[in-house]
Amino acid sequence: MDHHADTTPVWQVKAWKKREDCRNKIPKQWLIPETMWENLPLPLAENKVDLIDLDIIRRCNTLTARELDITENHNVALLLEKLATGQFTAVEVTTAFCKRASVAGQLTNCLTETPFDTALTRAQELDLLRESGKLKGPLHGLPISVKDCLQIAGTQATIGFTAYLDQLPSKHNSCLVEMLLDLGAVLYVKTNIPQTLMTADSENVIFGRTLNPYNTMLTAGGSSGGEGALLALRGSPLGIGTDVAGSIRIPALCCGLYGFKPSASRIPDGKQQGYGSGGLRTVYGSVGPLAGDIDALEILTRAVLSARPALYDPGALDIPWREVATEIKPKLRFGFFLEDQAFPLHPPVRDALQDAVSCLRDEGHEIVPLSAEECHMAKALEVIWKFFSFDNSASEVVAQGGEPPIASRAVIASLKKGLGSKFVPDFEEMAPLDRLSTLNIKRGEIIADWHRLWRKYNLDAVICPPAQNTAVEHDQYGLTPYTSFLNLLDYPACVIPFKRAKEYPDFAKEERQCMPYYNGKLLKGAPCSVQVFTSRLRDEECLAIARVVDQCLHKGRARY
Amino acid sequence: MDHHADTTPVWQVKAWKKREDCRNKIPKQWLIPETMWENLPLPLAENKVDLIDLDIIRRCNTLTARELDITENHNVALLLEKLATGQFTAVEVTTAFCKRASVAGQLTNCLTETPFDTALTRAQELDLLRESGKLKGPLHGLPISVKDCLQIAGTQATIGFTAYLDQLPSKHNSCLVEMLLDLGAVLYVKTNIPQTLMTADSENVIFGRTLNPYNTMLTAGGSSGGEGALLALRGSPLGIGTDVAGSIRIPALCCGLYGFKPSASRIPDGKQQGYGSGGLRTVYGSVGPLAGDIDALEILTRAVLSARPALYDPGALDIPWREVATEIKPKLRFGFFLEDQAFPLHPPVRDALQDAVSCLRDEGHEIVPLSAEECHMAKALEVIWKFFSFDNSASEVVAQGGEPPIASRAVIASLKKGLGSKFVPDFEEMAPLDRLSTLNIKRGEIIADWHRLWRKYNLDAVICPPAQNTAVEHDQYGLTPYTSFLNLLDYPACVIPFKRAKEYPDFAKEERQCMPYYNGKLLKGAPCSVQVFTSRLRDEECLAIARVVDQCLHKGRARY
Repeated sequence: MDHHADTTPVWQVKAWKKREDCRNKIPKQWLIPETMWENLPLPLAENKVDLIDLDIIRRCNTLTARELDITENHNVALLLEKLATGQFTAVEVTTAFCKRASVAGQLTNCLTETPFDTALTRAQELDLLRESGKLKGPLHGLPISVKDCLQIAGTQATIGFTAYLDQLPSKHNSCLVEMLLDLGAVLYVKTNIPQTLMTADSENVIFGRTLNPYNTMLTAGGSSGGEGALLALRGSPLGIGTDVAGSIRIPALCCGLYGFKPSASRIPDGKQQGYGSGGLRTVYGSVGPLAGDIDALEILTRAVLSARPALYDPGALDIPWREVATEIKPKLRFGFFLEDQAFPLHPPVRDALQDAVSCLRDEGHEIVPLSAEECHMAKALEVIWKFFSFDNSASEVVAQGGEPPIASRAVIASLKKGLGSKFVPDFEEMAPLDRLSTLNIKRGEIIADWHRLWRKYNLDAVICPPAQNTAVEHDQYGLTPYTSFLNLLDYPACVIPFKRAKEYPDFAKEERQCMPYYNGKLLKGAPCSVQVFTSRLRDEECLAIARVVDQCLHKGRARY
Repeated sequence: MDHHADTTPVWQVKAWKKREDCRNKIPKQWLIPETMWENLPLPLAENKVDLIDLDIIRRCNTLTARELDITENHNVALLLEKLATGQFTAVEVTTAFCKRASVAGQLTNCLTETPFDTALTRAQELDLLRESGKLKGPLHGLPISVKDCLQIAGTQATIGFTAYLDQLPSKHNSCLVEMLLDLGAVLYVKTNIPQTLMTADSENVIFGRTLNPYNTMLTAGGSSGGEGALLALRGSPLGIGTDVAGSIRIPALCCGLYGFKPSASRIPDGKQQGYGSGGLRTVYGSVGPLAGDIDALEILTRAVLSARPALYDPGALDIPWREVATEIKPKLRFGFFLEDQAFPLHPPVRDALQDAVSCLRDEGHEIVPLSAEECHMAKALEVIWKFFSFDNSASEVVAQGGEPPIASRAVIASLKKGLGSKFVPDFEEMAPLDRLSTLNIKRGEIIADWHRLWRKYNLDAVICPPAQNTAVEHDQYGLTPYTSFLNLLDYPACVIPFKRAKEYPDFAKEERQCMPYYNGKLLKGAPCSVQVFTSRLRDEECLAIARVVDQCLHKGRARY
């Protein structure tokens, strides 16, 4: 470190030190060869590179043919089957994903902590157990990646704050981590997030910026962006994210993945690393899975909910998993919400959704168009951001560390101002408790209106866009109306990848004023998606109906 | 009204007018004969009269022999069976309970609204439906009484406030009322409550004070006190109360009834009459049943939860009823919490609980004693009262009406002061949002500690007293530690009547300082009870285990 002048700020020295520690934990033979770097246009963040199309991971020659097969040709169900029957050992599966994740991490900054040794030791134990004729649980031997805010005893949980670099490694597991271990999973990496966890650009001064594997000039999404990039590169078969405004669904839509935000407190969220006292908890976040296939979402959710999360987490709802497959009608009735003019869609997003709805209609499902007026998305966005305004502790932790704020936060701050106070006009003038009370009442009104909507149209689910846009240029993502309103409602929601963006002309000048900016050429090839949701606590129905939609959209064509 | 001088306050005139209107709605032939009044020591509130032992209702000669049989010799299950098979018509059952409720109301002030005509019209419709071979639902033809805060379209919902006397009759039903009607119930009376709903003495300036049928010098409990008195006199087979600090369980324990407080938001609580904006809702109240038999609690709860309350109420949890009978082990493991020395038990309460625990032990159930230290009852009481302090709107409505506060509120106010701030010492100095946040965190700590307790001892349920006392003299009930901590925890809880108070000597002088005052002679004969609870959302298990306890305590002896 002696090459840093004394003027280097302390936060910077600490961040470099941590980053160096992290790099040193990657076995030398898993590092990307210098020759590969020489062939790539650098920095990747400023060049349009499709890491998937270029098949970079294969070309790095780090993984054996069998490891490539394990990581590329097996979805979660198949991995679990082969692990349970001994066709794969936990050690070889874990090794394969450790190696692949390492390479993905070097390419996209998607990783934070890499407890590979612990993971391999555990995999050995699981193999011994299996040899003795037992399986640890329904997730026996499955590697699962988790967002950095989830604590794994023995690894740090800095969530990208230099102020947290002085904290010792976690002494305890997060409640869900405890469950996953009891269910047989192998936890081998933690994944990158944005400073404050409150933007869609997973950048922080410790671990850097996560890049989108489909186009390195685009964001991988956030705040579970590390999961997005890692899963898209098949460096993980199944990841765990969190979502209080879209943070599972945004990386999913940016990186062509499946993501599921359950109703809050079904999958336990206890003992996460965070900030602030948490005493007000105005909006409850959800913990949930991201994966490359839809079945994986249900496998994870079923396994966790069937193991009584309330035994692990006093805050978890004590509601058993329900098997609903037989209750789902063959022909469903979908509400269809295309667009709120206040938040216009990019052309590829509109196209994907309209194509998806045509597919559903062609299969005989009923489609009931819902108006923007009925859906209250703009109102919900205003209310949720006003709720978030009660907690300034993230900025305090940034200031405490002395580090600069990341760029995307300024973009969001200015957009938030533009949101205005149309729904709660006198908010600023109110006493603090009146503010809180008024927001609760306004949320209640939106919930009550949605309640009427379900009954009025007798809907099974609603299909809508997960965002105005696909992944966009770094720091341009902006607000999250199409995901956040479902957090305010506390509805479960699935993102399903569907199609890739064709090249469209840029928006006309006057249309450009809408964020996020639309650059047709750059966004060509970006994954597109649809979002499917049900009402609160109908998580089982949401997953089952999302599977119906997925089968309709991808019939005959496996996702990978 | 011309006999009132001009100096009579407006609230008084309006209250008398309303009371006269209510009296005029009782058919003349259902009024208690003057000769009966002449034989009773008046006022009843100041004389120890056991209306049940004296068999007053029978002696009033208002009900026919068949009506006496219907109301006295049939529990809810049997009524439903005879209604479904046509052995009883809905009209005759409704008529019987209308008449009996009228008499009970005259004796104890347990009624507020008496929509007898609407009820009888509906009963006729139900009878026609049955004759056509159909039943309206699982509660076909069953009369159900509801607490005054539940709204029935076409009847007033003043909840005892003179300020609300100018309001027109309810235009809509409460969500639960809507469900009960869809399930086939007949709603025929609303029942009395305390001014503000926040004391255990159901007294207000409109409908007067509800008396305990077992001893008219004692409180019937509150805030669902009208239900307590009405059910004890068999003027209703099944009643609906609400409980945010004990308001279902206190009337149950005062009046020798079964009462069930579910986890909040399972039975829908929407569209109740109340006060304040409800925007902060720091502690969620529960809606639940009271009855003369334990099966009735489950019949009501199962019927409602099986009909998807979330379809009726956007605030209701969308969790289906679970049948758990086969999952309940024959030998259970009970935590046993006898007493917190800060809130000492009256001798009959201690005896009843110890006898109950002996019965359970004799049947082979395991009993695990829990210490006061472990149960945090005093801390929970402090936190819940501090939560309640955010809402002063009840006092504002009292002031708006101009009426005087009822006596029991002053008693509670002084006891609250005595509670102190041991657990949240700097509460008064905090900014409002910090207060709220701190209380949420403190509640979280208590919940987390209880969570550890369930796991540590592997408990199926806990048995404890429902109060320090049985029913006590009017206005002496005081605080509610043994019920309120379960509201803070949001645990489901059942009160089961067990034994009657023997005569004990008064407490020694120094012990008298504990509220409520113990008067051994007066309290002789008062019903005693035990409380059984499980953890949050284990409502089905709570009811099933309460039935096991009830069978153990009352084996071979039906409750009536």
